[in-house]
Amino acid sequence: MNERSFSTGTRMAQANISEPPVQPDHRSVEILDGVRRAFSEKGFDGASMQDLARSCGMSVGNFYRYFPSKAAIVAALILRDLAEMEQSFRAILASDDPLSGLRATVRFRVSEASCIGEGQLWAEITAAALRKAEISAVTTHMEHEIVGYLTAIFAKVKGIDPEAARDRYYPQAMLIIMLVKSASMHPAENSVTQTRLTDLLLRTIDRTIDDVAADDLKGRTYA
Amino acid sequence: MNERSFSTGTRMAQANISEPPVQPDHRSVEILDGVRRAFSEKGFDGASMQDLARSCGMSVGNFYRYFPSKAAIVAALILRDLAEMEQSFRAILASDDPLSGLRATVRFRVSEASCIGEGQLWAEITAAALRKAEISAVTTHMEHEIVGYLTAIFAKVKGIDPEAARDRYYPQAMLIIMLVKSASMHPAENSVTQTRLTDLLLRTIDRTIDDVAADDLKGRTYA
Repeated sequence: MNERSFSTGTRMAQANISEPPVQPDHRSVEILDGVRRAFSEKGFDGASMQDLARSCGMSVGNFYRYFPSKAAIVAALILRDLAEMEQSFRAILASDDPLSGLRATVRFRVSEASCIGEGQLWAEITAAALRKAEISAVTTHMEHEIVGYLTAIFAKVKGIDPEAARDRYYPQAMLIIMLVKSASMHPAENSVTQTRLTDLLLRTIDRTIDDVAADDLKGRTYA
Repeated sequence: MNERSFSTGTRMAQANISEPPVQPDHRSVEILDGVRRAFSEKGFDGASMQDLARSCGMSVGNFYRYFPSKAAIVAALILRDLAEMEQSFRAILASDDPLSGLRATVRFRVSEASCIGEGQLWAEITAAALRKAEISAVTTHMEHEIVGYLTAIFAKVKGIDPEAARDRYYPQAMLIIMLVKSASMHPAENSVTQTRLTDLLLRTIDRTIDDVAADDLKGRTYA
């Protein structure tokens, strides 16, 4: 947990909600959608820089000017996802009942997991992160940012300092991330089985949130 | 859930425990350890058949005779893991208190997850399975076999038919698999954080097992 990984959560907790989110330009969206597709089709190692450049209609030379390495591409994809998530977490944090908002957002992400097709990219990046330090740095940063969003919500609900909430509820936040990721990486089941599995995943996440809500704040750490 | 995926669970439930497990020969162990290492270092797509052959000191031609494709290698790796798991699940099933045995085995796998280094291979195979139907067939088969082991234990404890237990507790079994896999794919944390996260993962698995133990068997399905 480095200084940088605290930034978003803390910034969110300080909640300058009026600050407008950065809107990525049309061309960046096209490029990132292209490389995302190429990674899903060929895998992280299978997709060459040439494949990636071609996927967004660029010459290899020009593509290298945007992204000098695959780690740079992953960083760009993750930054975009984080920007989207930050918007939705800001809205949750500003609402009257942040825990209900959180439950609804998680419910949406887990239920739609197999449709969105995020899982494939996540599986590729998870595998690459375990092999390559520069990818690991980017994914760890992302997970710590999401931990920051989640524990900022817990801080508000419990009426405690965001940093104290981050320390106290880090395991709960990480478990929620793991369950959402697992859901997205799980291959589609038949619809009855899928519904039952999704329900159990959501119940497990809800229980984790219930435990935070019921925590009496005694003891140095929780879990 | 095809016919084949039921085999081990059902066979285990019928529990011919005296049947000796197949002992792989020394050379196969060497070969599979070699390819496992090559996959971890270079990734599933990054490792060429030449890299894989070299990793176990074979010519490419000879290697192709053992493994005509990467899917065949993954199948061999998975079959070996399943044989090991089957041994440990047979012992659990034969014991007086199968749920305690199950909790202990899960505790060991989750606690040692980061040391064993299984996560890297699992992440690679999970990513490949979402891209390639032939790998997906192998991993789905593996997960269904493990669901068979787990629900055979649940069947014994609840005193119900293995097939009924498989239907009823499929989501719980799959959730346990997801949590163990997530633990193994999670990058190492500092030791205090790692302990707290492991404890929460284990508590979540224990609760899932508790729910099965407490299930009153009413209603067609559970979860």
